[in-house]
Parts: sequence; C-alpha cells; structure tokens
Amino acid sequence: MTLSEDPEPIVAAAAAAHRAWSRAPRATRAAALTAVARALDDAGDELVEVARAETNLAEARLRGELLRTTFQLRLFADVLLDGGYLDVRVDHADPQWPMGPRPDLRRTSQAIGPVIVYAASNFPFAFSVAGGDTASALAAGASVIVKAHAGHPELSRRTARVVVEALRAAGAPDGLFALVETRETGIAILRDPRVKAGSFTGSIPGGRALFDIASSRPDPIPFFGELGSVNPVFVTGAADRARGATIAGELLGSVTLGSGQFCTKPGVVLVPRDGALLAALREAALPDGQPMLNDRIQAGYAETLHELAGHPDVEVLAQGSDPFGAAPSPTVLLTSLDALLAKQEELFRECFGPTVLVAAYDLEADLVRFARAIDGQLTATLVAEEGDGIVPGLVDELREKAGRLLWNQWPTGVSVTFAQQHGGPYPATTAPGTTSVGTAAIDRFLRPVAFQGFPEALLPDELAEAPATGLVRRVDGAVETRG
Amino acid sequence: MTLSEDPEPIVAAAAAAHRAWSRAPRATRAAALTAVARALDDAGDELVEVARAETNLAEARLRGELLRTTFQLRLFADVLLDGGYLDVRVDHADPQWPMGPRPDLRRTSQAIGPVIVYAASNFPFAFSVAGGDTASALAAGASVIVKAHAGHPELSRRTARVVVEALRAAGAPDGLFALVETRETGIAILRDPRVKAGSFTGSIPGGRALFDIASSRPDPIPFFGELGSVNPVFVTGAADRARGATIAGELLGSVTLGSGQFCTKPGVVLVPRDGALLAALREAALPDGQPMLNDRIQAGYAETLHELAGHPDVEVLAQGSDPFGAAPSPTVLLTSLDALLAKQEELFRECFGPTVLVAAYDLEADLVRFARAIDGQLTATLVAEEGDGIVPGLVDELREKAGRLLWNQWPTGVSVTFAQQHGGPYPATTAPGTTSVGTAAIDRFLRPVAFQGFPEALLPDELAEAPATGLVRRVDGAVETRG
Repeated sequence: MTLSEDPEPIVAAAAAAHRAWSRAPRATRAAALTAVARALDDAGDELVEVARAETNLAEARLRGELLRTTFQLRLFADVLLDGGYLDVRVDHADPQWPMGPRPDLRRTSQAIGPVIVYAASNFPFAFSVAGGDTASALAAGASVIVKAHAGHPELSRRTARVVVEALRAAGAPDGLFALVETRETGIAILRDPRVKAGSFTGSIPGGRALFDIASSRPDPIPFFGELGSVNPVFVTGAADRARGATIAGELLGSVTLGSGQFCTKPGVVLVPRDGALLAALREAALPDGQPMLNDRIQAGYAETLHELAGHPDVEVLAQGSDPFGAAPSPTVLLTSLDALLAKQEELFRECFGPTVLVAAYDLEADLVRFARAIDGQLTATLVAEEGDGIVPGLVDELREKAGRLLWNQWPTGVSVTFAQQHGGPYPATTAPGTTSVGTAAIDRFLRPVAFQGFPEALLPDELAEAPATGLVRRVDGAVETRG
Repeated sequence: MTLSEDPEPIVAAAAAAHRAWSRAPRATRAAALTAVARALDDAGDELVEVARAETNLAEARLRGELLRTTFQLRLFADVLLDGGYLDVRVDHADPQWPMGPRPDLRRTSQAIGPVIVYAASNFPFAFSVAGGDTASALAAGASVIVKAHAGHPELSRRTARVVVEALRAAGAPDGLFALVETRETGIAILRDPRVKAGSFTGSIPGGRALFDIASSRPDPIPFFGELGSVNPVFVTGAADRARGATIAGELLGSVTLGSGQFCTKPGVVLVPRDGALLAALREAALPDGQPMLNDRIQAGYAETLHELAGHPDVEVLAQGSDPFGAAPSPTVLLTSLDALLAKQEELFRECFGPTVLVAAYDLEADLVRFARAIDGQLTATLVAEEGDGIVPGLVDELREKAGRLLWNQWPTGVSVTFAQQHGGPYPATTAPGTTSVGTAAIDRFLRPVAFQGFPEALLPDELAEAPATGLVRRVDGAVETRG
C-alpha cells in the first residue's frame, strides 16, 4: 500500500470505485465487509501490539475494542443482506389515485458518493480507520477516504493496509478505501466536488471548523460531526435516599472507565444537597489513575481541570494524590445547581478525563429547570425511582435535549445494536437526525432515488416486481415481506 | 387571527405548542390534519376566488392544486395512523450479544422542534401556507411558522386563518401554526435558537442565502431547500426515429404546462441532429401563451430568455408571436451539445417559463459524457427504446445526478405518493438525502431518540412491549407487524 498525500489521484480513484461498489450486489458488499472483519481478526495480535506502543491503552481494552470493530463490520454485512435499510417503496400505477392518476414509481436508496471520514483518537480501532463510520459508509456503497488521527499513525497505516488488502482479495474495486494523514490533505479532500459527505468524531472546535468548510462549499455537502457532550446525570431525592452509596460507586465507575476518555462519560451529576450520594462521594476511595491516551490529551485534560477546579464556584470534593499526572487520579468537583445555571458556559462543559462535576440542588423541581436550560447532548441519565413525581416532566424535557436517555444505567459503553442512537442536538452532533453508532448509522451515507415508469429490465433488483434477493418493502403503502 | 411581525411571541408560542403537539397521540394529530383538509375544502370557493385575484392562474388549475393540498394533508394523516415512519426499533436486553451484554434499547422518532417554512410562489396552495412542508412538519409533530410568499399575500392570510381555526377546533395547542410576512421577520425566526429546522422552495440564490444563515448559526440547523433544476431530457436516436413527432408534441406539452412555471419543467432536451424530433419542433404549431403567475416572474422570465436567445451559440428554433408578453408565447431555442458542454454555466440553467433549449448531438455516446458533466437535478428523463445500447450506461450516470429518473414519461406533474422523490444533489436541494414531496417528506422533521433500560410505564406507547396502537417495528433486528 502506497501512502500518498496528493489528493487528486486519491479522490479520482475513490470516485471511480464508488460507482462499481455502490452498484455491486448487496451480498457482494456483505462478503467484502466480512472479509475485512476476518482479516482484522487475523491481524489482531500485530495490531494490538502496535496500538499498545502508540497509546497507553491496556491490552484487554484494545482487544475488546477490536472485537467491537469486527462486530460492527459483520453487523453491517447482516444489514446489507436484510436490505430493509434501503427503505424501498413500490407504487404501482393507479388511475384511481385521489389526486389524479398515479404513475408507476419505485424508490430505493443508494450511496451518496465518496465520503471522507475523520478518525478519532480515543478509540484507535472502533472510531478510527476501520471503525463505525468506515463500516457504515462502505456498507452503504460509498468509497471511503480516512483522515488518520495523529494519535496513532502507525496503527492507522497498518489497519489501512489490512483493510485495503482484504477488500482487494474480496474483489472490491481499487481505490475504494484510502488513508491520508495531513490536515491539509484532509481539507483539500473535504473541499473536492467529487466528495459527497464527511464524518467526524472529536472536539467541538475541530468539528465545527470542518462542518463550516463542508457547508460553505460552492456545493455544500452533509457533514456528520459528533462533537462533544457533557452527558448530565439527574439523581432524584428518592433514589439518593434509597441507594445513595451504591449510586456513588457506579457513578465513579462510569466516570473513571477508560480514564474518562469517552464521549459519553458523565461530566455533570445533579444530586440532592446533604444527601447520601454526596456524603459517599466525599468519602469515596477513589480508584487509581490510569494512563491517558497520549500526552496531548493529558495536557488538555489538565488544563480544563485546572480551570474548573479553580473556578470560584467550585470546590474539590474528592481527589487522588496525582490529579494532573500522566495517569491522573480521579477528581470529584462540587458546585451548586444555582451556580451551574448561572454560569453554564464556564461550568457545563466537556472535560475529557477522569473527573465529574457534582452540582448540589435544594429543590428537585430545579432539575427540570436545568434540563430546559442545557444544550444538545449525546445522553442524559435519570437515576430515580419509578414513582418519583418529577420523572415524567424530566423525561419530557430531556427527550428534547439528548439522543439517548438512560434509566438507572450508565452512559459509557455504547452497545452496537439496531436501536442504538449516538447523536443528538447541536453541539452533540451537527446532524441531529442521525446516529454514528448502531445499524441506523448507514442512513447518513444514503440518498434516495426514484424510478418512474421504468421497464423491469432496467430497474435495480430491489425495485423489481419480484426481487431475486428478498427484502422488506412498502408496496402501494403497505409493508410486505418477501424472499 | 392577529397577524404580528414580532418574532418573540410567535416563536415562544411555537416552542410551547411544539411540546404538546409532538407528544399528542398520532391519532390526535391525524384527526387535526384531516380537519384542516376538510376546512380547506369548505373554504375552497372563497380561497380559489382570492387566488384568482392575486395570481393569473386559471380556476381549474387552482381547484386541482387545492385538491392536491387537501390530499397531502389526508395522506399524512394516514402516515400517522400507520406509524411506520417512526422507524421504531426495540432491542431486548441480551447477555449473549457478541460484542458484550446488550442493554434494553428502544428507539423511536420525534419532531425536531419548531420549523420555519418558506412558501413558494408558483403553487399558491400546494407549496405554500398549507402545502407539503406544512403538512409533513405538522404530521411529524413540529410546530410551523410559515413565511408567506409576497406573490399571494391575501390568499396566504386567508389560508392561514382557515388552518389556525381548524387546528383550534380540533383541540391543537395555540401557537402551533403562525404566519409571518416580512423578510426581516423570517430571518429573525430562522436565527432563533428555539427554531430547529427550515424548509424552502424557490430560487438558488434565495435558498442558498437562507441555507447559509441556518448553517452559520451558533447552533446550526438543517435547512431543506429545494432550489432549482434544469431537468434534462435525453432522447436517443432509436426513439427519435420511432416516434420523433410524437415526442415533440409531448415535450411541448410538458414545457408549456402551467406556462412553464414548474420546478420539474424540462429545460434542456438533447436530441439527435437532423432527426425527426428536431424537424417536428421546427415546424410545430406552438400552443398559445398563458399568463404567468405575476409580473415579477414574467419579468424574470423575459430577462433570462433574452440572455439565452441572445447567446452566440443559440438560435431560435420556434417562437410564438409574443414571446416576452404577459402571457408569453412559447419559445424553442436551439444549440449544440458541444456548446452546452463547453458553456454549461451560461446555457444549462433554469429558465422559469414556457421555453426549452434543444441541444442537438452528433454522437449518442456524448449523452453519457453530458450526464457526467452536469450538476444535481430534481429529475432526469430518458426518451428511449428498451433495446438502446446507450441506456444502461446513461441510467447509471443519471442515478448519480437526479432524485427521480423517468422513462418515456414527463417530469411535470409530481404525484404525491409513498415512493415519490422530489429532491436531488445540490443545487436541486440543499439536503440530498431528503424529499419535499411524498410521504417520506416527514423524515425531514424527525429526530431519533433512544430509551435505555426504561420501565414500561415511562416509555412512549410505540416503544411498549405491546403498543396500544399497532405499528410495524423492528424487534431484535426483525420486522414485526402488529395491531
């Protein structure tokens, strides 16, 4: 595999490959995705070793993440074979259609075109070169150019080599997948008229800058950025009384998991003042620090933590011995819900690392007031009892703010499933109607196309009267399963 | 109904109404949409009279358009009762899930939030105050603020009054629907953080300006603009030989329908040089001119037609006696495919009125070359014979460029159905994955939300184990119909 930073041949090849790949039978694409998964499995030992050398992540975590990565590829192969993602609609001609005679109209979905995927640093496998965006874009039929994250350059190259070779062996077109490394190349590709979408997982400033480039092109393109989230947790008085100490332990587990480097890490938790949870946190035996991904992330964490901990409305509730080290001990900060409401921009912000800001409240009703005040979130968590009077109103507010609501569970550990939703109103994501995790992630890279009055021989198989490959379709308005 | 141009109370009311409306049972929203349709039917005589006074459209056309408008509202009521649009996914907890134990996850869709709809001028009913965008947004559960088009102000007010009164009588929340009239108010509303999406049908410059406002907000929002389209028609040699004269008649019918004021009007047609179609067009008895919508549109048409007809590579092939009048006689212009390819920006452009640019080609293979060169389109039409060797390659190109492909039919007359697709790559639309006509138009105003580990009592009905109101859902990955 040759690594080049000249965008022209890369984009030209991606554009050519897109056509062949997007027209290939779904089973062909599914087989190629499965082949990539198998090749990553086979290269697992080597890849994990490289990942260990380039990041501070432990082997068990990396192996788990690789499992997630290959599982995603295999799940999208299943999605392809199922075919429901195409949202096929067949309307037969109908002279009696109430608004006037209806022509024969058949609608399917196809790949939007070549896509640039910006890899994330915190999941060197699952949100990087062969991660969820790549898997869902390839499944959709798009060609993919990955902009590698500088946090794990050699792992990116090795992973790309495995992907390219597996795709080639599976008969996929040359140029279907490519890796680039420099910021300049990435931007040139994002600006190229042959590239039709971008996706990104990372910080708000970085993602917004790329979104602005995509949106201000002469021909704007969709940009699916997953930018950041505070993931607030709302603890009711009843839950605090019933199991405050247990909640404290679970919360700290979620906050410190992976050294707090997850986009769904709970960053702010609202707790009753003078309750059992607050007392337990004050006295908690904090877990040991774990190394952060890399020095850059550690430095960023230390800076934000300094700002938060030094804020006049914030005190340190609990802290390990080495909160700013390379393997930072966890820090629990304390403020009041009133301060949080009054100084949202300063206090209600993502701090990527093992810390949480606890906001004590006096009035449970203020939880609703707070939910109403916040920006878009990936997740919002309720820790509550079923009979709590506040709950229905709080759920009603939080549905407007977050893509995923949790009930007495913790937001870290985002399962890859059919119903998963990882995305929410801005700034959680730049495209609130989409998800970057779960099978619905494929929708981002699709575009509908309708055929009117076409002879059967010229229609894609899924639009034929009796498709050779069965799938669920809506025919004359009614869902039909076949095949 | 009080018409106010103060955005603050209008948006505040829309935001409050959105919550109640989006949580109302689907059957309640369906009943309200049906009530609006009935009220528009009842007010039909009055509304058509006002429309006739404000536009130059004939009564039959206006009555047909009103039928389309009320049909859309009723069809979205059916969509609500069906429930499939929610794309509900239920994943039960699964300790055996291959990437690790899976929690109980249930995903549905809800309204994105208050929406501003920019009305179009050329369909004073169907793409205006109570048109498709309003119907699909209300169906989704969004509150709607319409920015009226200045082309039919009194009709806009009367229609809004009918809508507001029907919604109120049906028990919908106050503020669910509002009308504003000035450009400034519209922009202030598009910038308001409580407004979560915009939709628009109109010109490329106007739509792009609004898209840029929506995209550059501190919190960008989706903007669904349907901006413009040339709707090229590709006539093969075999079709020309088999039925050139017939095609000429059909083409002129589509070009002059509604005085050429449809976004799907064929603007450019590629025909064999020295063929039967070209000869028929040269000698065609052109239909009489019909009045254009209003003076502004007529002036715009005359200006663009002047530019096109005066272009050094263009000659007038056929023209009626009064091509620049208030009821302009049709004009057929002629150029070559080579000129069209060389001067695409000057020649391949929308000219809103009863004219078409015929581009003669020597080599059929150049049709593919041309298809590869053009921008995004709402439609592309093939007039061909089934055995034509050029067809598969041409279809393959055109699928990348247009949202709807037609086979020996004409693009004007966009039926409202389940499979309709009215939208395509930029500049046809600003959101290539969406449609503004047909039942899938509702997707624009939806946002997914997932509930993890929630007790049944706190879930929306569609996510319950056994919903009270049946609908098609994907349960543990498999489609299930129920109810």
